[in-house]
Amino acid sequence: MGRLMSIRAAILGASGFAGAELMRLLLRHPEIELVGAAGSSKVGKEVSSVYGSLRAYRGMRYLGVEEALELEAEIVFSSLPHTESMKFFDQLDSSSEFKVVDIGADFRLRDSSAYAAWYGVEHSNPKSLSNWVYGLTELHREEIKGATLVANPGCYPAAALLALAPLMSAGAISRSGIHVDAKSGVSGSGRAGGEGFDFASVNENVRAYKVTGHNHTPEIEQELSLIAGTNVNVTFVPHLVPMTRGIFATCLAEATTSADDQELSSMVRDFYQGEPFVRAMEPGNLPETKRLSGSNLAEVAVKADKRTGRVIAMSALDNLGKGAAGQALQNANLMLGFEETTALDPVSWGGREP
Amino acid sequence: MGRLMSIRAAILGASGFAGAELMRLLLRHPEIELVGAAGSSKVGKEVSSVYGSLRAYRGMRYLGVEEALELEAEIVFSSLPHTESMKFFDQLDSSSEFKVVDIGADFRLRDSSAYAAWYGVEHSNPKSLSNWVYGLTELHREEIKGATLVANPGCYPAAALLALAPLMSAGAISRSGIHVDAKSGVSGSGRAGGEGFDFASVNENVRAYKVTGHNHTPEIEQELSLIAGTNVNVTFVPHLVPMTRGIFATCLAEATTSADDQELSSMVRDFYQGEPFVRAMEPGNLPETKRLSGSNLAEVAVKADKRTGRVIAMSALDNLGKGAAGQALQNANLMLGFEETTALDPVSWGGREP
Amino acid sequence: MGRLMSIRAAILGASGFAGAELMRLLLRHPEIELVGAAGSSKVGKEVSSVYGSLRAYRGMRYLGVEEALELEAEIVFSSLPHTESMKFFDQLDSSSEFKVVDIGADFRLRDSSAYAAWYGVEHSNPKSLSNWVYGLTELHREEIKGATLVANPGCYPAAALLALAPLMSAGAISRSGIHVDAKSGVSGSGRAGGEGFDFASVNENVRAYKVTGHNHTPEIEQELSLIAGTNVNVTFVPHLVPMTRGIFATCLAEATTSADDQELSSMVRDFYQGEPFVRAMEPGNLPETKRLSGSNLAEVAVKADKRTGRVIAMSALDNLGKGAAGQALQNANLMLGFEETTALDPVSWGGREP
Amino acid sequence: MGRLMSIRAAILGASGFAGAELMRLLLRHPEIELVGAAGSSKVGKEVSSVYGSLRAYRGMRYLGVEEALELEAEIVFSSLPHTESMKFFDQLDSSSEFKVVDIGADFRLRDSSAYAAWYGVEHSNPKSLSNWVYGLTELHREEIKGATLVANPGCYPAAALLALAPLMSAGAISRSGIHVDAKSGVSGSGRAGGEGFDFASVNENVRAYKVTGHNHTPEIEQELSLIAGTNVNVTFVPHLVPMTRGIFATCLAEATTSADDQELSSMVRDFYQGEPFVRAMEPGNLPETKRLSGSNLAEVAVKADKRTGRVIAMSALDNLGKGAAGQALQNANLMLGFEETTALDPVSWGGREP
Repeated sequence: MGRLMSIRAAILGASGFAGAELMRLLLRHPEIELVGAAGSSKVGKEVSSVYGSLRAYRGMRYLGVEEALELEAEIVFSSLPHTESMKFFDQLDSSSEFKVVDIGADFRLRDSSAYAAWYGVEHSNPKSLSNWVYGLTELHREEIKGATLVANPGCYPAAALLALAPLMSAGAISRSGIHVDAKSGVSGSGRAGGEGFDFASVNENVRAYKVTGHNHTPEIEQELSLIAGTNVNVTFVPHLVPMTRGIFATCLAEATTSADDQELSSMVRDFYQGEPFVRAMEPGNLPETKRLSGSNLAEVAVKADKRTGRVIAMSALDNLGKGAAGQALQNANLMLGFEETTALDPVSWGGREP
Repeated sequence: MGRLMSIRAAILGASGFAGAELMRLLLRHPEIELVGAAGSSKVGKEVSSVYGSLRAYRGMRYLGVEEALELEAEIVFSSLPHTESMKFFDQLDSSSEFKVVDIGADFRLRDSSAYAAWYGVEHSNPKSLSNWVYGLTELHREEIKGATLVANPGCYPAAALLALAPLMSAGAISRSGIHVDAKSGVSGSGRAGGEGFDFASVNENVRAYKVTGHNHTPEIEQELSLIAGTNVNVTFVPHLVPMTRGIFATCLAEATTSADDQELSSMVRDFYQGEPFVRAMEPGNLPETKRLSGSNLAEVAVKADKRTGRVIAMSALDNLGKGAAGQALQNANLMLGFEETTALDPVSWGGREP
Repeated sequence: MGRLMSIRAAILGASGFAGAELMRLLLRHPEIELVGAAGSSKVGKEVSSVYGSLRAYRGMRYLGVEEALELEAEIVFSSLPHTESMKFFDQLDSSSEFKVVDIGADFRLRDSSAYAAWYGVEHSNPKSLSNWVYGLTELHREEIKGATLVANPGCYPAAALLALAPLMSAGAISRSGIHVDAKSGVSGSGRAGGEGFDFASVNENVRAYKVTGHNHTPEIEQELSLIAGTNVNVTFVPHLVPMTRGIFATCLAEATTSADDQELSSMVRDFYQGEPFVRAMEPGNLPETKRLSGSNLAEVAVKADKRTGRVIAMSALDNLGKGAAGQALQNANLMLGFEETTALDPVSWGGREP
Repeated sequence: MGRLMSIRAAILGASGFAGAELMRLLLRHPEIELVGAAGSSKVGKEVSSVYGSLRAYRGMRYLGVEEALELEAEIVFSSLPHTESMKFFDQLDSSSEFKVVDIGADFRLRDSSAYAAWYGVEHSNPKSLSNWVYGLTELHREEIKGATLVANPGCYPAAALLALAPLMSAGAISRSGIHVDAKSGVSGSGRAGGEGFDFASVNENVRAYKVTGHNHTPEIEQELSLIAGTNVNVTFVPHLVPMTRGIFATCLAEATTSADDQELSSMVRDFYQGEPFVRAMEPGNLPETKRLSGSNLAEVAVKADKRTGRVIAMSALDNLGKGAAGQALQNANLMLGFEETTALDPVSWGGREP
């Protein structure tokens, strides 16, 4: 692992699923060397004793967050829970000695009042928010390239935005009346799980949660508003389904044109022209989560419902891939000047079937 | 099983999952005797060799449809595929010597042109359609009581209508702009399964199908239109999730009032006052499919999204229970003058956890 | 629920899965009235808020153990963890004012030194052990009928013993060299779950645990020794598989006869002649867990391996049914003089498919 | 894909799960170019339309077997069903113009009478059997290096042999009395599935099949006998559990020494010293299937049961990885003179959690 001149990286929150996925991805990265992994609940334990699949890190033990930050990493990936990240990063700006990709939620919203409203706590340094770039690569690639601080998208916003951005950008859907119905595997809830996340409670069960109140809502709205050039509200209903990885987002919007499936699909294809990690599907094909499992790919499809004057935009991705660790590495590659697809090669690291 | 003076029943399509579930339910029925079960792909095989759980029927073998119809049953349950039912029942009217509950799709739509449009085939006898009562008990109980011919609802319409009917009836939602996003277990696809339904393809996968084109759409529209007194269109997107039983329907509608969660929940509670098989949930509680598994219960909850002026109405049920066999027996009980809950006793035959 | 002269029952440990299953079963019991349910981690909470499927108990709240014991129940079901039961019951004998079915482990072993060796703690009152009857009905029916105190079998021993007892009893297998390989769903681990029992860790995973050291081992040995009339040792390896309910036990033994499949199956059939809850399978048929889910049934099949001079005895059951709550109720019915199958009617309360 | 001077490869039976897995692996191989993939049931269809995850092969269509064989591939991987492979390969010997790795069963057994007995059909050319090397790399590496024709192990034998070979080789277990109890995911049954393999029948179900009669039995016996230098019989019971990938083998044997866990584990560690794809576990750790999913790794652990004088040897692997496609590529690498781990790099291509 690592080479003499490789970039030094540290991961905070590495004992969780997103952190572990990132560790897995970094094993393939020829230019980044992981110098430390912090995992608060597992400090002192061997990484490979917690994740048997990470035996390549034999000998590495989880550090405390402060310890990891003292390792002089040039890039820090943070997967800390919200309110935790801001304790460590809310004083940073572009002069920071290390770059940060925060997979957590503390720096995604430009508007601190939205943060307070949806997260139920005041942001510790609202002024710092403007120092961060929102890290959905397909929307902000150029900014990310020059950024020191990147706020990785939430898993649901990543899915919803990838589905809706092309149509909103093309003016094919109305700015009001947008609805996002998302179905997620449970790995988003993290390793701890807790009551309601044990196998016996999850298997053979579908449930909605935080209906109209999920804190990923303002993030979807922020980015759609940016594209639309005006304020966009969405209705958002997340669900848990009995699987481990994957999000399927089914988005509804009012059509503003009479475009048919073929034309809508063309808009999506044009929008993602050249994108390595988004598969714009041919009309008649629909996304599925399973074949994206373990990859950084997302699939997007659209369908006109002429009877009701609406459009259905669908996307699928791996919540730990394009929805978290994969997206984080894609951003890091850009920030560090590497080939965007390094260690995420879409050809050979596709998802899996069965 | 059965008593001297009990009602003689036959089941067509009994080798499928819905038929098997009905056979299971009939075991508890003190007044109905199953005299024959037809299962076209299993003719001659012992029922208990196909469904080990139905060992109480030891000795009974699957018949052909015609054979079963010659048994002079007083009530016939049919779970035949669409276009099959109408071959046998399209000449029936209220003078029929036997009553029918058709769990299939051939007699649900009042409008034969809708049938042709959505099922892709002309109905064999459009005039016969008016002889049938749509069998969602909570909407048509009185008609069902006097009916000879009842068309049991599709599993998706049952879920969507139970969620939306109270609000539409109360005028709390707009007649346009309704959207139904449904998540279903795979038992709806039946026992045959086929490519795409093997475990390896279903587990860890979410997929949408027949987006905007599912033939349950006109059924939802027909019944909502009846309540609204005007034409109602819906956008409908069904999904398959990796579980066996259960449907979760998440319905979106424009609010026409400023009712809050408490008020909306009251409307639902009032609408289902006294209903044995619908649980109107208290605000803050949400439906889940698992605890309804094996039961004839449905759960309904509603939530106002004040920010977007919309209402989310949610329901869960067992697609083989309230979505098929349970609903069929509930109807049969009414048609035959039995206590509606016979063999469906909601107290002791609730669903299961875990 | 309940009638004027019904038997008063209480459940300790009712917030766990086995306790909840027992509450579900008691809803159908015409002669037993549940007067209180203790659930230490849920004291004060409504039962129906923890288990939505138990809404028939609306209004009932979990009590503390002492509270529940003060209700003057005539029969107490206890599903407390080992070492907890003995705190409350180790002073009881046949003069007890209430009968007890202990679903836990504290009174199953006759030999207190085995208890100490396998549970790692001294029994609080070794002398009390002889006051209890081991509650696998098919082996000890007559004793159970007259018993005040019954120790319900562990889920694994129930499965292993049902498979092996007929052959051991018939002398068809050697007393040494017995091996039990068991595959269990995770509901045995209870509702709390904890690390390693979250869905993401269980799904798509098979693992062995407590290999050669599981504390159900001496229980299997005790009962087989009793049948054999001499000391019998077994090798026992339990596994967790990604399902909720069900145990499949595959038992290996040296054949002492040249009996073929037909003859071995006859021995099993003879042994279980008239038993309502054990299905001795015809040669060629094998047990499956799914169709027993929710029932008190067990399936048993045997197969000779002439090439190796061995016999394979297999069984399947629902670990919460015949492996816990169903078995407990079967015993209670006998202890209280009711029909053994009351509320467990094998005809109409079979398991389910799919 | 591919380079000017790379080795030309073809896959027969590529529309099945093992073939698709091999196609996935070959994407990473810098020295092997896939020139054609035959998939009898999918001839003419685009590979990426059948496996969305294989979109890197866009444009490639499934061929017929004969077509694929005409492509002058230098190595042919065959995943055809048994009796199909021998139609094409039973005339080959070391003078063959192309090398073959047969993932199917037709050339694994040295003894044609065993083939006839267990597969129920005469081998088409018994003399050809001696031209093939049994391809469990850890047992036959040197022969494989020089081989033209390699018969890849069955998934169950791979698991059983990896667990038992070290102990048999060290003389730590008796040559008689060996028992293998295996738990497998359903992807071994292939893509077609069929009745009994639909999700609704598999989920929440454990079942045994082909008890004492599975045709992988003689393969396990052949290789153990080779190690033991005498005839070894095993009792073998395979089971299906509700997961997609993975086999867990639990093997029982009589101990011939008083070695404890530490000593037994040392034997295993020594045996696999330097092996890139077998993880000999430390005492106290046990294999799990999930973390091996998608990898070519196997985990092996052993445990002494001093009470019964027996040893439990356990292994886990991915049935499509080390149990099929991964093992095939490992062999091909050796046959072609490449680094054994090429495209299977155990560091970066470990399995996954969650």
